[in-house]
Amino acid sequence: MKLLEERILSDGLALPGSVLKVDMFLNHQIDFSLLKELGREFYNIFGSENVTKILTVEASGIALACAAAEFFSVPALFAKKGLSKNIGSDYYSAEVFSYTKGSQYTIYVSKKYLSERDRVLIIDDFLATGAALDGLCDICARAGASVAGIGAAIEKAFQGGGKRFREAGIKLASLAVIESMDNGKIVFN
Amino acid sequence: MKLLEERILSDGLALPGSVLKVDMFLNHQIDFSLLKELGREFYNIFGSENVTKILTVEASGIALACAAAEFFSVPALFAKKGLSKNIGSDYYSAEVFSYTKGSQYTIYVSKKYLSERDRVLIIDDFLATGAALDGLCDICARAGASVAGIGAAIEKAFQGGGKRFREAGIKLASLAVIESMDNGKIVFN
Repeated sequence: MKLLEERILSDGLALPGSVLKVDMFLNHQIDFSLLKELGREFYNIFGSENVTKILTVEASGIALACAAAEFFSVPALFAKKGLSKNIGSDYYSAEVFSYTKGSQYTIYVSKKYLSERDRVLIIDDFLATGAALDGLCDICARAGASVAGIGAAIEKAFQGGGKRFREAGIKLASLAVIESMDNGKIVFN
Repeated sequence: MKLLEERILSDGLALPGSVLKVDMFLNHQIDFSLLKELGREFYNIFGSENVTKILTVEASGIALACAAAEFFSVPALFAKKGLSKNIGSDYYSAEVFSYTKGSQYTIYVSKKYLSERDRVLIIDDFLATGAALDGLCDICARAGASVAGIGAAIEKAFQGGGKRFREAGIKLASLAVIESMDNGKIVFN
């Protein structure tokens, strides 16, 4: 998606260790007008998939999930990373290893909000190794919900997650696919 | 705001310990069409305040902050609760004690995205004791940014935070104000 690629080139920062900072518009400060265009594009791609729910994981997927949910006219649902007093005891959980933070965590979704009647579009800001998205797929499987597809704003193709999902037959749309970012130079597919 | 009060009565759940569960539409599963109406109402109230940025804290404030940001045509910015490798070393921080989780945590905002030129509308899903909002006000003070006001979806008036902000002269708008919720009965102001 040209609009997103241009924004990555103008405001993104490629740091050593394959870190792409896009916290000026995507995952710390948020340009919601841009995210709405991304949401619209997800609707163009998945709009015929009978999606009943948009699922993401806190925190940086939430804005994009909401932007998409508006076009699909379905609820957004975000997996929580920790249990508060308020979440109740009745939830699905999955383990996720975060390469960014270097630690493992558990994500939770209340059983009330996901069932075998749901057809889920999974959304996240980044697709790198795909660990968080694996966790969200696991949660859908536990709920008996079908996965309509996965939508990521930015895929770092060289980290392998996208290839793995495509080979598994999952409909995957990444709106900007980065082939390489060696020496600070971002090259799109 | 009638629309929100009605939704709280139909879908909310008053639990022992003054816990109000609204995770069906506000802070786990999200009805973004409702949140847009809340965002519009914040714009009706604060639209003349020359707001340059909407500030919230992850995770459950993000959706509402985005909904508001769209009406104000300004960026949303969410304080992070933990440091990842990606946040960099140049940030403002503040301490917050969470009564819900029973623990203290630190929130962070990159110095790049908040400055003395900003006039900030602080947004959150809940206002109870006001601890998280205090942290966000602290961060604005550290950045030299002025606080245009505070907007909360739901205020639990009996927990005192709202009274404290109003007495401090801060323009505060809570879209549903709960006076009491004894024995599971929710009474609005």
